[in-house]
Amino acid sequence: MFTPRLIGRVRSPYTETKKIPKGPGAKHDAEGTLEILPEFEAGLSDIEGFSHLFVLWMFDRSEGFELMGTPPIDNRPHGVFATRSPRRPNPIGLTVVENLRREGPVLHVRGVDMLDGTPILDIKPYLSNIPQESLRRGWLAEAESRANRSGN
Amino acid sequence: MFTPRLIGRVRSPYTETKKIPKGPGAKHDAEGTLEILPEFEAGLSDIEGFSHLFVLWMFDRSEGFELMGTPPIDNRPHGVFATRSPRRPNPIGLTVVENLRREGPVLHVRGVDMLDGTPILDIKPYLSNIPQESLRRGWLAEAESRANRSGN
Repeated sequence: MFTPRLIGRVRSPYTETKKIPKGPGAKHDAEGTLEILPEFEAGLSDIEGFSHLFVLWMFDRSEGFELMGTPPIDNRPHGVFATRSPRRPNPIGLTVVENLRREGPVLHVRGVDMLDGTPILDIKPYLSNIPQESLRRGWLAEAESRANRSGN
Repeated sequence: MFTPRLIGRVRSPYTETKKIPKGPGAKHDAEGTLEILPEFEAGLSDIEGFSHLFVLWMFDRSEGFELMGTPPIDNRPHGVFATRSPRRPNPIGLTVVENLRREGPVLHVRGVDMLDGTPILDIKPYLSNIPQESLRRGWLAEAESRANRSGN
């Protein structure tokens, strides 16, 4: 395989996992920064033109993995590849952020859901959407609808 | 950091990079399969309900990285984090595929743009879109509009 390389760190308002909004209707509008290491700064050239970015990062405060787990939003277990659980065979997280502005090696972004200090692995431009009418959200839609019916 | 773990392989119609559609108007509607190793099959539980999936995979036939490069669609160089170049500090690819059906450890999907045999690192549910009207596509939109004007 390959040896993962640190390209920078996330600065976020979240210092504890339990403070990150989760569950039905959770809003991810927290602002933070992506601080890229000086030796990778040239790789940010022309990134300003993209409104949204994929950030690939490492779940560095999670240990091991489990193939089935019960997410905070549900009371039923689901396969890890059908969830966003941090306890994955490869502890890689993926977040779509809004690209607000760049100051040299620092990207100011909206929509961080990572812990402060999280290692960044990669940044990619977000290029296109799936047509909204063709999107199905599986067990998550069912869990949300149960939560709404029970008045949560 | 962490040691990447192979969770499966992509089966795709593409055996050579040059056969993968690229550039303005490229359509990614090729069908293929994600063959998950038996020991990770339980992690696919309930994945059937999601219409689209993120696949994280490894650019295993690419060597090294360059911070600035000229993509096939343009004649101008851009920073690697503003492109989909395989020559990245961490050789991780990201593809959104349509989830057609599951047969045990095998997911049949549409939209593969990986080479046959590509190592899979992770699969995650695709949950939501960015509002279409707020999406900006930077240099790529400019390059496409130049290509269209020149009649390509």
